[in-house]
Amino acid sequence: MKRISSASALTRAVRAFRRNGETVGFVPTMGFLHEGHLSLVRRARKENDRVVASIFVNPLQFAPTEDLDAYPRDMKRDRRLLTAEGVDLVYEPTAAALYPDGYRTHVEVTGLDGVLCGVSRPGHFRGVTTIVTKLLHAADPDRLYLGQKDHQQAVILTRMVRDLDFALKVVVCPTVRERDGLAMSSRNAYLTAEERSWAPNLQRALAEVKREIEAGRIVRSELATQAVAARLASGPGELDYAEVLSRDDLAPVDPLRGKLVLAAAYKLGRARLIDNVWLDAKGGSRPRGSGERRKT
Amino acid sequence: MKRISSASALTRAVRAFRRNGETVGFVPTMGFLHEGHLSLVRRARKENDRVVASIFVNPLQFAPTEDLDAYPRDMKRDRRLLTAEGVDLVYEPTAAALYPDGYRTHVEVTGLDGVLCGVSRPGHFRGVTTIVTKLLHAADPDRLYLGQKDHQQAVILTRMVRDLDFALKVVVCPTVRERDGLAMSSRNAYLTAEERSWAPNLQRALAEVKREIEAGRIVRSELATQAVAARLASGPGELDYAEVLSRDDLAPVDPLRGKLVLAAAYKLGRARLIDNVWLDAKGGSRPRGSGERRKT
Repeated sequence: MKRISSASALTRAVRAFRRNGETVGFVPTMGFLHEGHLSLVRRARKENDRVVASIFVNPLQFAPTEDLDAYPRDMKRDRRLLTAEGVDLVYEPTAAALYPDGYRTHVEVTGLDGVLCGVSRPGHFRGVTTIVTKLLHAADPDRLYLGQKDHQQAVILTRMVRDLDFALKVVVCPTVRERDGLAMSSRNAYLTAEERSWAPNLQRALAEVKREIEAGRIVRSELATQAVAARLASGPGELDYAEVLSRDDLAPVDPLRGKLVLAAAYKLGRARLIDNVWLDAKGGSRPRGSGERRKT
Repeated sequence: MKRISSASALTRAVRAFRRNGETVGFVPTMGFLHEGHLSLVRRARKENDRVVASIFVNPLQFAPTEDLDAYPRDMKRDRRLLTAEGVDLVYEPTAAALYPDGYRTHVEVTGLDGVLCGVSRPGHFRGVTTIVTKLLHAADPDRLYLGQKDHQQAVILTRMVRDLDFALKVVVCPTVRERDGLAMSSRNAYLTAEERSWAPNLQRALAEVKREIEAGRIVRSELATQAVAARLASGPGELDYAEVLSRDDLAPVDPLRGKLVLAAAYKLGRARLIDNVWLDAKGGSRPRGSGERRKT
């Protein structure tokens, strides 16, 4: 696996692949890799002639109050894991190179960041769309691999790719979970043993409420939120949000019907867990003539 | 010359060039072509194996009060001219295809649009950076050709290309002028015969004030503005701005020294003329011990 630190060197390497008619899959990461990242790499390995991964903890997507400096890092281990998965190139730029003095450009997807993580992390998704644009320009892939765990991020980046006519396909891969159901995340390293043993409750609550919705026993958006909150009320942390939205554009849906996502964030010690489940709701079965639907 | 209307078809065509190891030059235009555009095409023709031009009147860079609907168009003539110059592909997208329902993404270069045309055209440059990003994704060129007449646009796009790690070079070509000195512009079509005969006075005023600055007779930024205004005061229209700024980053410079641009906009009937000249100022020759420089 070749290590590359400049955008121009990465572009040259990828253009050499392209001249051979080879396809390129790209997996952007912030490092401290886990099985979730590796599942993206494996999918990319399967679907492309070449695989490029990046490791970069992007300061632009952290608010001043967030955990940029504390974010866990282990470059040696990351490189070993990527090498073992057959990655061809790893892009390891520095913040100084990507955001030099006089840097002034941002990419923004508006109207999808006023919900879920966008509320408590203002500017976060602008940082994500900007860095991913930069990484895509350097790596010029045929396919971009993202995890479903960051559903809002995947929706926003998919919209960006379509809106800006990027010549590539976005592939969203299923969340990879620990045996007890906790979604894998580099930030799980922040959890104490006690917090870690409680953490799967977030996923359990989402799974239970998903079943309630799909069975038609919860039909109103607000009641879904309350159902998640009730299941987590006795926990050691604090629910940041729990919302059901339309899956593709994160619009409010009420009554609950169609392709939806139930997403939640929960502050637990130094970590902020996020998770989501996809669901298909039929809109419930209510008595005819009920005026409830008209009230919305 | 092949006509292409979809971004994906353009990408496919350009990728076929690239597989042959050919380089690609790209000239974005809003059509109604004149010798200024054609000079960009000729330069691109000279420096690349393939030339792609685009013709698209981009609604995103027009304010609601501006001349989007009136903007002059002549596609048949434009295609004839581009064919004669040996352009390989012309990209002619529609606004409906580029900005479909649900479109939400913008590219913005901040801090370079608070001067010159940015003041009277809020949102204009965001429209420019967004469409050029989209066009670059579709055309994927090695070189992007821009005219010096739109100096602020060239500065902003150069910054964008650098900041976002676009793998291409920006080539800024000299302003092409009519015999009497008027900078060529599609919007010159708006001028009446009388306005047209007065119009070269803008360029003359800039050239005269440039000489005054380079000779060290005008050293203060404000006096340069006043000198342009005085020369145009008896004209039939209205000066929008005249400013001397640093050439590469449009920062204020006072006293005038270094690589500068003197840029002006003048409202004349239905048109708004813009023009600029580059200059190198040595900072003037003042008596030793003059405190003037320290005051700034």
